[in-house]
Amino acid sequence: MPTPAIPVAVLGATGMVGQRLVQLLDGHPWFRVVALTGSERSAGRTYAEAATWLLDTPLPAWAASLPVLPTTAAAVAQSGARLAFSALPASVARQVEPALAAAGVWVCSNASAFRREPDVPLLMPEVNPQHIRLVETQRARRGWPAAIITNPNCSTTGLVAPLKALHDAFGVTHAVVVTLQALSGAGYPGVPALAIADNVIPYIANEEDKIEWEPRKLLGMLDDEGVRLADITLSASVHRVPVTDGHLLSVSLRTARPVSPAEAREALAAYAPPPETADLPSTPRPVLLVREEPDRPQPRLDRLTGRGMTTVVGRVRPDPVLGLKLEILSHNTVRGAAGGALYNGEWLARFLGWA
Amino acid sequence: MPTPAIPVAVLGATGMVGQRLVQLLDGHPWFRVVALTGSERSAGRTYAEAATWLLDTPLPAWAASLPVLPTTAAAVAQSGARLAFSALPASVARQVEPALAAAGVWVCSNASAFRREPDVPLLMPEVNPQHIRLVETQRARRGWPAAIITNPNCSTTGLVAPLKALHDAFGVTHAVVVTLQALSGAGYPGVPALAIADNVIPYIANEEDKIEWEPRKLLGMLDDEGVRLADITLSASVHRVPVTDGHLLSVSLRTARPVSPAEAREALAAYAPPPETADLPSTPRPVLLVREEPDRPQPRLDRLTGRGMTTVVGRVRPDPVLGLKLEILSHNTVRGAAGGALYNGEWLARFLGWA
Amino acid sequence: MPTPAIPVAVLGATGMVGQRLVQLLDGHPWFRVVALTGSERSAGRTYAEAATWLLDTPLPAWAASLPVLPTTAAAVAQSGARLAFSALPASVARQVEPALAAAGVWVCSNASAFRREPDVPLLMPEVNPQHIRLVETQRARRGWPAAIITNPNCSTTGLVAPLKALHDAFGVTHAVVVTLQALSGAGYPGVPALAIADNVIPYIANEEDKIEWEPRKLLGMLDDEGVRLADITLSASVHRVPVTDGHLLSVSLRTARPVSPAEAREALAAYAPPPETADLPSTPRPVLLVREEPDRPQPRLDRLTGRGMTTVVGRVRPDPVLGLKLEILSHNTVRGAAGGALYNGEWLARFLGWA
Amino acid sequence: MPTPAIPVAVLGATGMVGQRLVQLLDGHPWFRVVALTGSERSAGRTYAEAATWLLDTPLPAWAASLPVLPTTAAAVAQSGARLAFSALPASVARQVEPALAAAGVWVCSNASAFRREPDVPLLMPEVNPQHIRLVETQRARRGWPAAIITNPNCSTTGLVAPLKALHDAFGVTHAVVVTLQALSGAGYPGVPALAIADNVIPYIANEEDKIEWEPRKLLGMLDDEGVRLADITLSASVHRVPVTDGHLLSVSLRTARPVSPAEAREALAAYAPPPETADLPSTPRPVLLVREEPDRPQPRLDRLTGRGMTTVVGRVRPDPVLGLKLEILSHNTVRGAAGGALYNGEWLARFLGWA
Repeated sequence: MPTPAIPVAVLGATGMVGQRLVQLLDGHPWFRVVALTGSERSAGRTYAEAATWLLDTPLPAWAASLPVLPTTAAAVAQSGARLAFSALPASVARQVEPALAAAGVWVCSNASAFRREPDVPLLMPEVNPQHIRLVETQRARRGWPAAIITNPNCSTTGLVAPLKALHDAFGVTHAVVVTLQALSGAGYPGVPALAIADNVIPYIANEEDKIEWEPRKLLGMLDDEGVRLADITLSASVHRVPVTDGHLLSVSLRTARPVSPAEAREALAAYAPPPETADLPSTPRPVLLVREEPDRPQPRLDRLTGRGMTTVVGRVRPDPVLGLKLEILSHNTVRGAAGGALYNGEWLARFLGWA
Repeated sequence: MPTPAIPVAVLGATGMVGQRLVQLLDGHPWFRVVALTGSERSAGRTYAEAATWLLDTPLPAWAASLPVLPTTAAAVAQSGARLAFSALPASVARQVEPALAAAGVWVCSNASAFRREPDVPLLMPEVNPQHIRLVETQRARRGWPAAIITNPNCSTTGLVAPLKALHDAFGVTHAVVVTLQALSGAGYPGVPALAIADNVIPYIANEEDKIEWEPRKLLGMLDDEGVRLADITLSASVHRVPVTDGHLLSVSLRTARPVSPAEAREALAAYAPPPETADLPSTPRPVLLVREEPDRPQPRLDRLTGRGMTTVVGRVRPDPVLGLKLEILSHNTVRGAAGGALYNGEWLARFLGWA
Repeated sequence: MPTPAIPVAVLGATGMVGQRLVQLLDGHPWFRVVALTGSERSAGRTYAEAATWLLDTPLPAWAASLPVLPTTAAAVAQSGARLAFSALPASVARQVEPALAAAGVWVCSNASAFRREPDVPLLMPEVNPQHIRLVETQRARRGWPAAIITNPNCSTTGLVAPLKALHDAFGVTHAVVVTLQALSGAGYPGVPALAIADNVIPYIANEEDKIEWEPRKLLGMLDDEGVRLADITLSASVHRVPVTDGHLLSVSLRTARPVSPAEAREALAAYAPPPETADLPSTPRPVLLVREEPDRPQPRLDRLTGRGMTTVVGRVRPDPVLGLKLEILSHNTVRGAAGGALYNGEWLARFLGWA
Repeated sequence: MPTPAIPVAVLGATGMVGQRLVQLLDGHPWFRVVALTGSERSAGRTYAEAATWLLDTPLPAWAASLPVLPTTAAAVAQSGARLAFSALPASVARQVEPALAAAGVWVCSNASAFRREPDVPLLMPEVNPQHIRLVETQRARRGWPAAIITNPNCSTTGLVAPLKALHDAFGVTHAVVVTLQALSGAGYPGVPALAIADNVIPYIANEEDKIEWEPRKLLGMLDDEGVRLADITLSASVHRVPVTDGHLLSVSLRTARPVSPAEAREALAAYAPPPETADLPSTPRPVLLVREEPDRPQPRLDRLTGRGMTTVVGRVRPDPVLGLKLEILSHNTVRGAAGGALYNGEWLARFLGWA
């Protein structure tokens, strides 16, 4: 690895998504972690002391000994980080992320706080990389030396790449999305074991609204006025299931022109990321994998496809009501959270000419 | 309990649904079990020896010592049973159930073998009790002294009572149904633990087709020609989840006339069984329970409502695509299988003037 | 039910053990609940509002509408309760329980706070009912009109009845106890789902020490000096497993005189509660159930034996190192917590001549 | 990788352990798979068709297209394999493995069939590599050109390296071992989900006997008469728990001379494999890892330590009954099965001068 790596920070590093960021940044070809932040309770301790490490790969040695900084713009800016990956709760993000951008630190945020701001890109590099140009609007309007970019909700993330492939090919007008979401999506401690043992919970606060709105921005057209939301009507019904990682989505959809399962599979399998983002370190290879077995995708068997960055699709078949149905699986804390923020950071680094 | 109880048999008594039948028949006010049948491997042993009892109530003493009979019409007829509850696999049911009816033993079957026969009632007493009159057509056409009646698939069962309430009130035209089904639906041994641990399987063989067809017969009109299928288009996507009992259904539907969630809740809560079946021993009390909490129904918390016979509905809310959506929970081996067959048997006994 | 029921309170009623107390007190022949207490956050709301009801039987109507009182001696005394069942955390119990006894309200506590006090009975009515006489010492020494009695830790509870049967018959000198404990033992929210999914945790804070000490008091001799601890050496190793209810104990033990598995099974099966407590409403029937199958007891199948009050024993066999080994199952929130406190309350009510 | 790789076969390749062997042999520096065998039902199909691949890494392409051979000595010998890794059931192994050795194919077997034969090595290269010399006795006595070597039962495997470290240092005389074993130990389909959901099963057929006997051979002394069993008395109590991979052992033990937890930890941490096996490709690095946290090892968090070959030890503390207790975790299908056979194969290849 050539030396001049880009110094980065991880905000909210002790939580579930923060841990995934630390894991994914270990050995990253471009980024070098110079700061990890946590809550007031964690600050001052080493990362090894402050984090209950829940992943099955070892806590990287470089991270173990880093001191946990308080989550303030001043502390992060002082660390020398040029880019911060944010795994903060929305309420904290709302305070800290603008302060960081104002202080000249770019922010790639997994938080929902700013996703709907007209001048903040909601970005998946394999779907809408051109939306990154919104950072110029954002800096101009807000007078910041840096800017905030966001990645979508974990369930939205799984939905959008297949939706993009089908929308480009056939024009999707409506989609009914039922999710079966993993425990890690709720963070740690998150869901009590007694609440979910031998059980399913058909509710996650605020989640359905995100899934019904965010894909419209991601698939929207960017023009001088900003992003025009895509004209797709979505309905979401969400469920928490006793699975550690991997969100499964059961999707029925209507297209502007009739489409056979074979055509749909072909369009999904043929989907390629735009050329400008096709060779980033985190670009999924492939972006979409279409499985032909009758009983796939499954969370435990398919979530690590493409190191957790590939979206796996299966059971593409006719839907008597809406026309087409399929099952989608995406790793919620990798592609749907930490990996999504990191991938955005890579695209930003290239866009800014850093890498 | 007055003495002259009706002698009954349980066919396929050692399996999951057979065990539930034995459990539910324990202390039944009308029925007395005189025969339990099993596979060739089980026949000749006592029920206690032959069955791996998996329920958390004790194996009833009367059942423990009963010899397991071979599953043949002759053995059952000889036992004196006037009515047989069948928990047989479809392939065995196809052979044995007609032979029983021909031998004068009425059959209440949980098997799928004859559900689509035009002269066989597919019956839920709280939904379409009048369909029982098909047994007259059946006997006349086939020349049998008795007849076969069937109850629907376990997922269909959960769907149909709420669908009936909404159909009566607003005219349902389309429904997209996504299921999260319990392990017990696959029988025993059924799903291997390694296949479902930390996992969801988005497939159950032949299940989607049943859910898309059976409700149309149950909600159909019986006239001199038989049952005219209801004009509802259904789409089903099925999933096995790591839950022991209780099928959860996530349903989006379109109605002939617009309906608000409040109206829908009212129609669901007001649903009453027809008077002729309202006081059978197994009639659910209530048939439908509408819960108002944002996160219900849940399998572990709600499956035993009304001793497992009540269908629990929640999250009734607008659906941006189809108009209305809701979550439904039903106990798959009680209301959806053993309890359904038993309830049919009670209605049959009353219809025949036995009780 | 004859009218003059004894007015009782449940302290800490919104938690896991508190909910079990409410469930078990529903329809109790002697006790009538007049007060439910909770944390400051809960006080003032109705019980239905304050408690996240996690049991699969419905929340009793009488409890739903009761206001939750603050957990203070004044509030409870004012409610008219003569007896309080305490499901409080130890730290709260340490403050409130003495104040209640001083105010004339008897306390049957599930908390660990006072179990080791020399003048506080640690009581299981089927094991050491005579220890209840310690309340006289306690009242005399402390000058209280009432007193505190305690039931043991949930794992201790499962261990002690079989240990008593074997100790009476053969003299147990050593026991190595390895536990596999259910989630409900940690209360609610308790163990995070992500911590225990696809996992076992070989640690529960302070638990091993309780299991190694408490049986010695329960099996000890009461004389004028107090309880002389039984001369048994215990070793405990505890584990949390992904099971909702039911603690399983794997026990190896050494006896003063050699004992065959057959003799041990006989002694266990013959164990009868002392005559003075044999007919209390909560007396387990039987106290011990010895199962002969090679693979029992199992938590899901056996925990409800005797409505959750029976201790189930199996796999009684030779131990090459210590002499004898066996498996024990006990329902941790029924016999091991709420049911244990209730059973103590019944014995106390009889002892005081109230019932 | 240099070309002249050693051609090997995997017997019983479609099962759980067979799949792990295929996974671990992918990219192996010495071995090249030339034959995969299966049951009669599988033979003739490709491996991709015949195996229900259950691992979360992709099925290697080279394996997918290999035809599954029948499990016969003739078919394997004809494939050119010089060494066969056997994941066969004991009953099949008993027939096929001797025929293979007679046909000149060396066998590294995971099956229990021949572990107790006096002239068959029961081998863990990091514990008793010198026992490999038994193959000379075996060949001489049986007149075979090749020989069979075996690795121990999966639970025995986890126990033996820590036991060896402590036995060398302090002389272990007695051990009480309670296991919490993962589902994958039962193979596929193995344990039905309904049997283990929300449950623990305190029984695995024949397992306790293996754990009580096999360590004595592994830790025994090899002399001209064969292996003299180590003079250690063991007691095992086994449990199946709802965990996918990773056997946890709770062990209490007595040593010839008193030992403090600190001394024990030091002896465990210092344990090094014998020099002749220290640099084999599968040698665990480290052999033993001693964790200091109060709540480790845990199956989900620790099973992949050292790519699944390291044994993780924790909670080393005094045992009031036997002197010392600790918790041990080992990956049952990697170190305890497929990885164990492979590691034995590497040691054999070096012993025979092949590598």
